[in-house]
Amino acid sequence: MRDVAVIGVGMQKWGELWEKSLRDIFTESALLAIDDAGVDHIDAMYVGCMSSGLFVGQEHLGCVLSDYLGMGPIPSLRVETACASGGAAFRQACLDVASGAHEIVLAGGVEKMTDVDGGGATFALSTAADAEYEVYQGVTFPGLYAMMAVAHMHQHGTTRDQLSHVAVKNHKNGSKNPLAQYPFEVTVQQVAESILVADPLTILDCSPITDGGAAAIVCSLDAAKRLSKKQPVKVLASAHATDSIALHSRRDISWLSAVEKAGQSAYKDAGLGPRDINFVEVHDCFTIAEICVIEALGFFERGKGGRGAESGETAVGGRIPVNPSGGLKSKGHPVGATGVAQIIETVKQLRGDCGERQVKGAKIGMTQNMGGTGGSCVVHILGSV
Amino acid sequence: MRDVAVIGVGMQKWGELWEKSLRDIFTESALLAIDDAGVDHIDAMYVGCMSSGLFVGQEHLGCVLSDYLGMGPIPSLRVETACASGGAAFRQACLDVASGAHEIVLAGGVEKMTDVDGGGATFALSTAADAEYEVYQGVTFPGLYAMMAVAHMHQHGTTRDQLSHVAVKNHKNGSKNPLAQYPFEVTVQQVAESILVADPLTILDCSPITDGGAAAIVCSLDAAKRLSKKQPVKVLASAHATDSIALHSRRDISWLSAVEKAGQSAYKDAGLGPRDINFVEVHDCFTIAEICVIEALGFFERGKGGRGAESGETAVGGRIPVNPSGGLKSKGHPVGATGVAQIIETVKQLRGDCGERQVKGAKIGMTQNMGGTGGSCVVHILGSV
Repeated sequence: MRDVAVIGVGMQKWGELWEKSLRDIFTESALLAIDDAGVDHIDAMYVGCMSSGLFVGQEHLGCVLSDYLGMGPIPSLRVETACASGGAAFRQACLDVASGAHEIVLAGGVEKMTDVDGGGATFALSTAADAEYEVYQGVTFPGLYAMMAVAHMHQHGTTRDQLSHVAVKNHKNGSKNPLAQYPFEVTVQQVAESILVADPLTILDCSPITDGGAAAIVCSLDAAKRLSKKQPVKVLASAHATDSIALHSRRDISWLSAVEKAGQSAYKDAGLGPRDINFVEVHDCFTIAEICVIEALGFFERGKGGRGAESGETAVGGRIPVNPSGGLKSKGHPVGATGVAQIIETVKQLRGDCGERQVKGAKIGMTQNMGGTGGSCVVHILGSV
Repeated sequence: MRDVAVIGVGMQKWGELWEKSLRDIFTESALLAIDDAGVDHIDAMYVGCMSSGLFVGQEHLGCVLSDYLGMGPIPSLRVETACASGGAAFRQACLDVASGAHEIVLAGGVEKMTDVDGGGATFALSTAADAEYEVYQGVTFPGLYAMMAVAHMHQHGTTRDQLSHVAVKNHKNGSKNPLAQYPFEVTVQQVAESILVADPLTILDCSPITDGGAAAIVCSLDAAKRLSKKQPVKVLASAHATDSIALHSRRDISWLSAVEKAGQSAYKDAGLGPRDINFVEVHDCFTIAEICVIEALGFFERGKGGRGAESGETAVGGRIPVNPSGGLKSKGHPVGATGVAQIIETVKQLRGDCGERQVKGAKIGMTQNMGGTGGSCVVHILGSV
């Protein structure tokens, strides 16, 4: 397989984008990425989107978006693995280039979530869980993650304050990210005292409903050195793993087995370990998710993830900065776009373009994007060339 | 890139499968394919499905289906490009193996379409068209293909009888396929006189609503020779192209540009032309579609596709047999599974396993699977080893 690199990234401010359609949102990000890469065409594209059928009544996104981007008749395909769809689109683009099938491939992600009412969004998101054995019983995603949080607290003594510290840290980082949906800071007390969604999770433990897109341009490392005006970023590893769809089928609902497996596979492929990673963008759809993920990726011992944000170890400037972008919590979570946005933050950090939230001297970054309650997980490791 | 082969295929009878859920339908086909291949594991899987979110309220199918197949924690991803999702899943499996990422990969497709009412199915299918500029105005798929038929009749003199002959031929072939949903024969008069759906298309010009799954096992050609007890089938070419999503954006609505481009790309990669193909499985979602497709693939001159079935040239035993399986018309059209089922028929034909519908001496077969009104198209060429 050929070595693969990222040569361009593009993203606009996320939020409630009432005046823009899904195709507008995607196309704007894709054009920014193409411009950033300095290329005049792309040879193929992959688009991550979780549920445009339920959110906006449009499937067949590969065709719609290559058409609106003016890139037809290139091969263009949507991939879906719930909230990890963006990471999966990036992974397929990397595999495509690595195989030699195409030279310059766009990996994009998009979700337009605000064109349905609250119940419609909750239902669309619930389709990432087990429709027959979980959703049918009435559970929602805050409910599922609340069960994981209760289990983690019971088994490991994780505290309400430790959950809050994750939100505090991520909003602090996000306040320095001009593209974030909620670029404001919050306090430990505000998080704990905000509206209860599913005990113990409050509204400030939850990532928001977001409209947004993201895109990256991938090519072979050889072509990157030839084509790119900016410093290319090399893809050191790409891994994907799955777990049981339903939470109740797992041995321990506070442990993310697919994250552990994807992480181990990525470390092995890159010949690296957790200590070699300078920062990580993780899937903090809820505060408890970040705590579980940093354990499963080996940055904290099992059961000790709650100490990460509380101790400052996961802050920018700490031992292992987690979510310097603000994460899903502050930046927003347009589900299909999230995984690609993690790649964008990583590329920007490795280029040294992150201003006040820059992780100093960053040479190797990791992204972790997951679907459902961790039923699928995609991990990438990227490094400076 | 490594050479890729198919070593196993699996499919059960299609129809209105009220007693089976989507995951049952997929798993049964996948287990048949694994058994046919004689392998004891798979390393990754791709699943084509158009709209499980709208049809059964379940996204995240990669995870659900690897879990229910007992294959977690392998990487498992759903891909979607409307009715060409199955062909795209097979293509991604081929790219994955060709890249060297995995050794044994399952390509599956599934759709469970009968768990919604008629209006629900019509809406779900409409999401393959342009939601903003076509569906919003009230068009449905029979309406869109009817416009293509009227244009073809007007420009090229194609007749009502020629449309009927496509249905007659495909039902005749399907009557010899024990897995077909509608394995009965029809007459030219019956097709023309059946209920009018969208002038000039009657109900017997349309493929049905179907529940069904299909799966194939792909590996490197080297591994195939080592692993397979049966004769492996080599993938000679895999191509994917797109066109504008909306019919009204095309220069000529009776011409399928994405089919032409994918076909040309496949012929080029395989070093073959239309005369080298012994039979073809095409996407006859409506009778007019088969007529347009066999022109775009170069089997008939532009405007002359209507003569194919009428003259007997596309019958089994004719110059270029089209849809020996019975096609979407008779075999059924569970949209995400259709592209994989075309691969299955092709493998069975090349193995000489097709009984009464066998194309004698077949050495090279082609599949053509498309989404929407031809906004996306996936073409494969397979050959005996």
